[in-house]
Amino acid sequence: MESPVLVEVLRGDVVESVHRGVIAVVDAEGDCVFERGDTKRAIFPRSAVKAIQALPFMESGAADAFGFGRKEIALACASHSGEPEHAELARTMVAKAGLDESAYECGAHWPMEQKPALALAATGARPNQFHNNCSGKHAGFLCTCAHKGISTKGYVTAGHEIQRMAATALEEVTGARLQADQCGIDGCSIPTYAVPIRNLAQGFARLATGSGLSEKRFEAARRIFDACTSEPFYVAGTDRADTKMMQAGKGRIFTKTGAEGVFCAAIPELGLGIALKCDDGATRGAEVMIAQTLARLLPEGDDLRAELEVQARPELKNWRGIKVGALRPSSALTQ
Amino acid sequence: MESPVLVEVLRGDVVESVHRGVIAVVDAEGDCVFERGDTKRAIFPRSAVKAIQALPFMESGAADAFGFGRKEIALACASHSGEPEHAELARTMVAKAGLDESAYECGAHWPMEQKPALALAATGARPNQFHNNCSGKHAGFLCTCAHKGISTKGYVTAGHEIQRMAATALEEVTGARLQADQCGIDGCSIPTYAVPIRNLAQGFARLATGSGLSEKRFEAARRIFDACTSEPFYVAGTDRADTKMMQAGKGRIFTKTGAEGVFCAAIPELGLGIALKCDDGATRGAEVMIAQTLARLLPEGDDLRAELEVQARPELKNWRGIKVGALRPSSALTQ
Repeated sequence: MESPVLVEVLRGDVVESVHRGVIAVVDAEGDCVFERGDTKRAIFPRSAVKAIQALPFMESGAADAFGFGRKEIALACASHSGEPEHAELARTMVAKAGLDESAYECGAHWPMEQKPALALAATGARPNQFHNNCSGKHAGFLCTCAHKGISTKGYVTAGHEIQRMAATALEEVTGARLQADQCGIDGCSIPTYAVPIRNLAQGFARLATGSGLSEKRFEAARRIFDACTSEPFYVAGTDRADTKMMQAGKGRIFTKTGAEGVFCAAIPELGLGIALKCDDGATRGAEVMIAQTLARLLPEGDDLRAELEVQARPELKNWRGIKVGALRPSSALTQ
Repeated sequence: MESPVLVEVLRGDVVESVHRGVIAVVDAEGDCVFERGDTKRAIFPRSAVKAIQALPFMESGAADAFGFGRKEIALACASHSGEPEHAELARTMVAKAGLDESAYECGAHWPMEQKPALALAATGARPNQFHNNCSGKHAGFLCTCAHKGISTKGYVTAGHEIQRMAATALEEVTGARLQADQCGIDGCSIPTYAVPIRNLAQGFARLATGSGLSEKRFEAARRIFDACTSEPFYVAGTDRADTKMMQAGKGRIFTKTGAEGVFCAAIPELGLGIALKCDDGATRGAEVMIAQTLARLLPEGDDLRAELEVQARPELKNWRGIKVGALRPSSALTQ
């Protein structure tokens, strides 16, 4: 099945580029209430499932043992921008577990957003592993290991207990059987397993409703959603899509981006989970897709719907600040 | 007509993302020797036609009047990385015409490549208009105005004589009629007109062969190709695709990228021009498409073909330097 064009990039009144993709909106029982493209297709969810990968961090009691609050829990689910607050909070998290940067196995990189990267460079410093956009998730892994008395050495490899716990949580929540030949290595060196888009969406509906989950897991999921929606800066950063959508949502929507054009999301009040993939991997395309999909599920007249529709139609300005174009959802996404 | 998948992005052995596109390889008479997708489709060529936009700079005598050599001519055709050499050469070009940064109307931006942006930030400086990736093209416009005694004020607008000269050159070389309702504003504020992909390819075949051009225009084109292929650092910059391809080509191939996934190119020894568009606007997709298209046109056993085939299959490494995947041309592009 061809993926439909879901996003148009306009220059003036002309469509200059397009983004195709697949979207599934599913309830906790697995019924698809909205779909575009082949939702049975398996994709690498990448960082869009960090909330699931953080379940062992909550369920093991590690988060509570170290006295972590919403900010720390949000950071454990984050693909952050490496702003000073993000890097510092990751450092304090592992310090509480008696660890430092030397325990990390995610690698260092310059903040991916231009502003924090330039700000860091202007100080004369270089990035360390706390600036890695995944440093909060890795803090969660490391703190869970420390709490359970597991060696942290090699904690990023598929065979390590912490990764097996994360993989099991992903299987249980999504109902998908993970396969070794459908496994890649993520940017931060942990395994990423391909999961059908429809299963990812159902998984987030389950996290949002508790349907099919143990009471303990639903409580962990509830606290994760509460942390991320309360502290959206710690899930992403200044001017980032997740932060802006969850700030606008005031607790009503959970969203999480993943590399190569992935988004997972949930609307607890509707009992729905969402997963999508922009086929070409473009973040700009995936951001329009998720904002418009969330908007269309909300009732007309809802302020959040109106705000998300604005976020789904960003203006493009050139180097002099002149408006030269815009992104917009295609008719396949609005109708 | 659906554009075919031309590039696959692999993570491990799994195709994670894909890029679709349109490619035309055309001779100077307009005969298509290779095509994929709808090559009659009009696209914004963006910066991929800077060599054509630089024709008035050569034909007016401006380049010679100011004593410019290959580096300056290459920079006039460049989308450069804003490295110190690029910014400094743009400054000296307009200085020879008695102008300074205040004449520029392209806007300032941080270098788009991370390394030069961080290097500039580390000095405590901020970018000026000489760092704009189009500052060489604008130096060409400004020097041509100065040489011809035309006011530079508003030189970026469609109605200004220098833009009318550039548009006329584009029409004459490509044989396409430019239309006001198919015009957008480019990143550097000048107009960009939509042109059918097939016409763009034919235009570059004409520049490479002189067929259908006046002797004066062919001489200007010959000098532009010679400058760009001799000084490819000044067309792009460190580690950039145009620079690497033309360095490998040793004068045998001309290539030029444009924003939103465009490439134009020529192989003078074969009398062929090439134009392509990655539908989603991704530079990484367009780079694989152009390298593989150039490679397939060259004879088997040719060292340049082998080198371009390597450039068409870049490895993807993660933050720790572990190989996690690769880009590769699809079977629709290799067969």
